[in-house]
Amino acid sequence: MHPLPTYDDVLAAATRIAPQAHRTPVLRSRLLDERTGAELFFKCENLQRAGAFKFRGAYNALARLSAGQRRAGVVAYSSGNHAQAVALAARLLEIPATIVMPHDAPAAKRAATEGYGGRIVSYDRYTEDREEIGRDLADRHGLTLIPPYDHPDVIAGQGTVAKELLEETGGLDSLFVPLGGGGLLSGTALTVGALAPGCALFGVEPEAGDDARRSLREGRIVHIDAPRTIADGAQTQHLGELTFAILHRAAPTVLTATDVELADAMRAFASVMKLVVEPTGCLGFAAVPHVPERLRGRRVGVILSGGNIDLARYAALLNS
Amino acid sequence: MHPLPTYDDVLAAATRIAPQAHRTPVLRSRLLDERTGAELFFKCENLQRAGAFKFRGAYNALARLSAGQRRAGVVAYSSGNHAQAVALAARLLEIPATIVMPHDAPAAKRAATEGYGGRIVSYDRYTEDREEIGRDLADRHGLTLIPPYDHPDVIAGQGTVAKELLEETGGLDSLFVPLGGGGLLSGTALTVGALAPGCALFGVEPEAGDDARRSLREGRIVHIDAPRTIADGAQTQHLGELTFAILHRAAPTVLTATDVELADAMRAFASVMKLVVEPTGCLGFAAVPHVPERLRGRRVGVILSGGNIDLARYAALLNS
Repeated sequence: MHPLPTYDDVLAAATRIAPQAHRTPVLRSRLLDERTGAELFFKCENLQRAGAFKFRGAYNALARLSAGQRRAGVVAYSSGNHAQAVALAARLLEIPATIVMPHDAPAAKRAATEGYGGRIVSYDRYTEDREEIGRDLADRHGLTLIPPYDHPDVIAGQGTVAKELLEETGGLDSLFVPLGGGGLLSGTALTVGALAPGCALFGVEPEAGDDARRSLREGRIVHIDAPRTIADGAQTQHLGELTFAILHRAAPTVLTATDVELADAMRAFASVMKLVVEPTGCLGFAAVPHVPERLRGRRVGVILSGGNIDLARYAALLNS
Repeated sequence: MHPLPTYDDVLAAATRIAPQAHRTPVLRSRLLDERTGAELFFKCENLQRAGAFKFRGAYNALARLSAGQRRAGVVAYSSGNHAQAVALAARLLEIPATIVMPHDAPAAKRAATEGYGGRIVSYDRYTEDREEIGRDLADRHGLTLIPPYDHPDVIAGQGTVAKELLEETGGLDSLFVPLGGGGLLSGTALTVGALAPGCALFGVEPEAGDDARRSLREGRIVHIDAPRTIADGAQTQHLGELTFAILHRAAPTVLTATDVELADAMRAFASVMKLVVEPTGCLGFAAVPHVPERLRGRRVGVILSGGNIDLARYAALLNS
């Protein structure tokens, strides 16, 4: 196992990604404040390059590769946003990229990955093991594997989201974060631990796949079947070794959200905030009403992790 | 006729609305830059309070009323966004508001107007004259009429959009502005004339209702039947006396956009920029490809005027 990243690694990542990553806006909504009773601060990573926070971790990891590793190229496996992020970061750094994607990944995500120049290798997410495919490609072709979450440089890059949010808001009482493999949440935990130790941290995963909640409760990494949920970016089957270790120590509260709650949140973002947020990106806000005691008059951060979704699918969910 | 407002009035309006109006973000998109060849700067008034630039003009006008006028209340006629803007500004200033709205106005706009405490009076936009209804209510109840565009304080308020955009970008080669009754475009013309006289100004109206193009060409206010277009905020039948006088002098280029072009632009904002923009708000960007000679390597501003649209209608247009 790699050594665990620390907040110093988040600081180094912030410097490394600054020339290429957007410092995304923090938006407010008086109407959603009134509905929840909280002062809400939405960190809009749906407005990040390639449409999701994933660009931060991917660019940070790729920027640290040696000249030899860059020449040989990288390989990544992803349900979508990590794929686009690696493909874009690789193009910016002039590194060849191969992406292992599920054959049923949203068409918009596949197209964007190809648009950035990534080579796609498809697999079946319900029967094949993407990690095995990725490792095999890495071994056979000398590629460097860039995992979607369980890598110290990826985690450190994701920790820059909360750094910007805490700097801009000047402090928060609680923070709600989408949770799949734990890359964003563990990076956030490093930053919150350093900058805002009094801030209550909430990770929110799909109800159909609550492996992280069970893992933290049982003190071991629980594996599950790929969950069927509209939150396609959180259809992970288990936490990583690094993300589990960080989260086990940071002990965030893990909440879950149903697909109905995700679609409700998605509609609220569209109608009230005029923002397109993909279902996975709605996880944080969807669970805000679950902890009413944490809201009244409190300063609450919510990370909107991404906005990549096929328009036809988006339209169908708006009507659901 | 009122005296024509000047850029000094825009400056005064900026100070007056600053405590309540958002200074909306200016967003960029590398992908849309690549597609058009220009450096595009999108001024996001869809993220303004009440979801459109209209709040600026309405608040500026209401804030200038005397104590007696405030007590008696105001009346406004509007296809939607001006209604919400007057209702919200009136609530903030504790002024009773009556809103004359077409019976087929989007349900979201009606609901928002009522949510802000406005009293709604309905009319048929194809057979009745909303101005007459508004004037009649004003006469009978001593209300002050706040017209949607043909008022110096409304125009001055709308001019603050371009002021912020020009300040933030440090200058533009051209600027594309949605055009209905001409309030936003004439306010923009005052600001561009003072701050960026070399900036080419484009007003864009629906192809189904090109009364402004004809009016500026013929040198008189041309009246038309209410045009049938998805740009419900630009279904105006004629320019106002003030907006015509300002535009006649400023001589912007008037372009038109079809409903198909508006829907295409709306989908681009959703998929690329993750922004919900109503059809009327897409007018400026929809016409950008019409002037390719103005784009290559140039700094191009685009005002997204609003984001208020029923989600069912929005979903249908995304699928169109």
